[in-house]
Amino acid sequence: MNNYEDIREEAYAANMQLPAFGLVLFTFGNASAADRKKGVFAIKPSGVPYSELSPEKMVIVDFDGQTVEGNLRPSSDTQTHAVLYKHWSEVGGIVHTHSTYGTAWAQALEPIPVFGTTHADHTTLAVPCAPPMDDKKISGNYEYETGFQIMEHLEISGLNYKETEMILVGNHAPFTWGSTVEKAVYNSAVVEELARMAFLTMQINPAVQPMKAALIKKHYERKHGSDSYYGQ
Amino acid sequence: MNNYEDIREEAYAANMQLPAFGLVLFTFGNASAADRKKGVFAIKPSGVPYSELSPEKMVIVDFDGQTVEGNLRPSSDTQTHAVLYKHWSEVGGIVHTHSTYGTAWAQALEPIPVFGTTHADHTTLAVPCAPPMDDKKISGNYEYETGFQIMEHLEISGLNYKETEMILVGNHAPFTWGSTVEKAVYNSAVVEELARMAFLTMQINPAVQPMKAALIKKHYERKHGSDSYYGQ
Amino acid sequence: MNNYEDIREEAYAANMQLPAFGLVLFTFGNASAADRKKGVFAIKPSGVPYSELSPEKMVIVDFDGQTVEGNLRPSSDTQTHAVLYKHWSEVGGIVHTHSTYGTAWAQALEPIPVFGTTHADHTTLAVPCAPPMDDKKISGNYEYETGFQIMEHLEISGLNYKETEMILVGNHAPFTWGSTVEKAVYNSAVVEELARMAFLTMQINPAVQPMKAALIKKHYERKHGSDSYYGQ
Amino acid sequence: MNNYEDIREEAYAANMQLPAFGLVLFTFGNASAADRKKGVFAIKPSGVPYSELSPEKMVIVDFDGQTVEGNLRPSSDTQTHAVLYKHWSEVGGIVHTHSTYGTAWAQALEPIPVFGTTHADHTTLAVPCAPPMDDKKISGNYEYETGFQIMEHLEISGLNYKETEMILVGNHAPFTWGSTVEKAVYNSAVVEELARMAFLTMQINPAVQPMKAALIKKHYERKHGSDSYYGQ
Repeated sequence: MNNYEDIREEAYAANMQLPAFGLVLFTFGNASAADRKKGVFAIKPSGVPYSELSPEKMVIVDFDGQTVEGNLRPSSDTQTHAVLYKHWSEVGGIVHTHSTYGTAWAQALEPIPVFGTTHADHTTLAVPCAPPMDDKKISGNYEYETGFQIMEHLEISGLNYKETEMILVGNHAPFTWGSTVEKAVYNSAVVEELARMAFLTMQINPAVQPMKAALIKKHYERKHGSDSYYGQ
Repeated sequence: MNNYEDIREEAYAANMQLPAFGLVLFTFGNASAADRKKGVFAIKPSGVPYSELSPEKMVIVDFDGQTVEGNLRPSSDTQTHAVLYKHWSEVGGIVHTHSTYGTAWAQALEPIPVFGTTHADHTTLAVPCAPPMDDKKISGNYEYETGFQIMEHLEISGLNYKETEMILVGNHAPFTWGSTVEKAVYNSAVVEELARMAFLTMQINPAVQPMKAALIKKHYERKHGSDSYYGQ
Repeated sequence: MNNYEDIREEAYAANMQLPAFGLVLFTFGNASAADRKKGVFAIKPSGVPYSELSPEKMVIVDFDGQTVEGNLRPSSDTQTHAVLYKHWSEVGGIVHTHSTYGTAWAQALEPIPVFGTTHADHTTLAVPCAPPMDDKKISGNYEYETGFQIMEHLEISGLNYKETEMILVGNHAPFTWGSTVEKAVYNSAVVEELARMAFLTMQINPAVQPMKAALIKKHYERKHGSDSYYGQ
Repeated sequence: MNNYEDIREEAYAANMQLPAFGLVLFTFGNASAADRKKGVFAIKPSGVPYSELSPEKMVIVDFDGQTVEGNLRPSSDTQTHAVLYKHWSEVGGIVHTHSTYGTAWAQALEPIPVFGTTHADHTTLAVPCAPPMDDKKISGNYEYETGFQIMEHLEISGLNYKETEMILVGNHAPFTWGSTVEKAVYNSAVVEELARMAFLTMQINPAVQPMKAALIKKHYERKHGSDSYYGQ
């Protein structure tokens, strides 16, 4: 199994961070790390508790969703990961969790509004919430279609996957990504905190409006613009 | 006490998981494990703190609720466990907790609606909430009647104990079960998380509707159907 | 300091449990243990962080609030403790915290309704909330008057300190007591959990009514009546 | 680097307390400690994870915001700290976090009302919430202007920085300060707890009014007046 040692280690470390950050209960989540040159990614095996994971147990899958190496079945969400890797050439890691607050917003079928600078430091618009897909797609290749649902809704929302690295899938839960799986894990923790803060903000002031454009722009540019200088 | 070593160990381990998962405060909960061939179950002794439990302290009780072995008094909820074991021939473990969110839904006398796939992965309908029993039964053999209250409400709700392994008892708290006590503990943690997510979902969007049927069906079949393949 | 070794140890252990149970931030709470034969109690010294406490640092105070032994100043709430020990002859321990949910109900000036059996296992009526005292008493011997405020409101509410061992002081926070300080700490953790559950219950179902009388009676008698048998 | 060893150690210890108290996720916060005689402060370097901090990595900056010593870039919020040190001659430490509840109130653009004695023990008025600054200032020297925004809103609110050591910056998050950075960290933990309790108080009783003046006065004087005696 020495062919894919790097991504096995990365995927393992990332999966182990999910319970450490309080983002998963039992096996309700999965992380994958891609080796784009080899056209494969390492992903959590299906249904194995985090306490029993090891780098060797990660399953190597190609961008068409075919298992390349590994004796265990890959996560049931593998096809979603595969679709995104195939179409998004600069993504190196993907994470899916059922984290509590992010999932609650997804279940509420509501995007997470930009109420403050914590949010704007990461994305300039609401975290989008893709609507549930139509019944035909659901009864078909469901996880594969979930990948397209994510890509299409991001595009409809006027967002680019290189700048907005998080989405809610309606009635389901968050997906995040990044240039590395470590960044994707970071984004999973961030979207959970944004979801929690936005929930509380609306409870405190139900008439609250999204933050004004000048402040969104400033914070996003602090972190992402050509003159970026952010870092607390 | 070597006769029932297996179920003593299982019941002990399960009881110890309840505080580890944050599902009980002090002694507000109990788990039991059955040996169906011998027609008995091991259950937590009454009022003993979790920190002082041991396999030897578990009390062995038959399905009529009579103590078979043990010097300590069994949990005050023992009769409820006995009734369920007696009538549900494929149940191997039962757990009762006063976990915070599950208990809040039980106190609100509301079933937990299916708002997302996290829920549908476990049961296709709302987690039912049995109404409080009539005053006569309350003043009679209360814990024994609680068992019947659970069975009757599950039936009225069109649910089968083999598929829906969790219920709320109105004004009281959740009960869960499974083929093993380990599965019943898992179900206790799951119902608490479903309760928490559903609470947040309704706070974010008070007009939210239950998830559509096609998605419920898909997710349940991923995990339970003849072609099940689920495992994150 | 050997005269009061027992209550020093008890008060120390009880104070240390408050941060362990998540009931206090910094020094926002205090516990005391009485030796009723000697007419004194041991209480936390004022403003000392929990991490620096020791049995030797506990201050010994009599039921009139006079320091009997100890170089440190006793907690600023000492007079409240003294008044309650003086008038309630069967109380052996008192605890005061600013635990989050209990304090929120006190700040809302609302008693905690009986919504379920978790509550009824401990008291048959709402946890009372004493109104803020009049301005004259506030500007006088405030902590001393707080003791009377507690006693008077308990009496007005038709409650006996031997059966209801917890109260909210309006705009302030919970006080609890018991035959031992260990029991008073237990009651502090219980009132916090009852407060949290009741908050959630009302959020889930704003029209919820208190639990019916037959069920309250049953649960209270399980634990407290002459035929008590409770213990989960 | 021996010139500023004391404030390096103090700033390091304070920054490490922020994750320990649960006040920051990743690097969403920063603490600084001033040496007023030397006219400099030590502050967290930009973007460095807490787990990789050390006293040596702290950056030494003067009150005009110029780096005096250190190879790393100082926190992006450094100019805000510098402005406050320059104008508030008795401040020895400043802390900024994006703690969950404090940030939610800031995002809601609402001051935190005085609902109870926990709050009044620390400040007699609502914790103020500075409005977002005008677009011109945002697009200018944003962090520098944030310092003035804080000072001006405190003054408009009739508050003195020596008595009220905490503020919310609208759409952003809390800032706190104190005679030492240790006190500023304490204030950060306090404002988060006040924010959480006030949120819950308003959820329980939406019609709740701020606490009456006599009680505010009493509690504040217990802790701050010339006859102060507070300490739980």
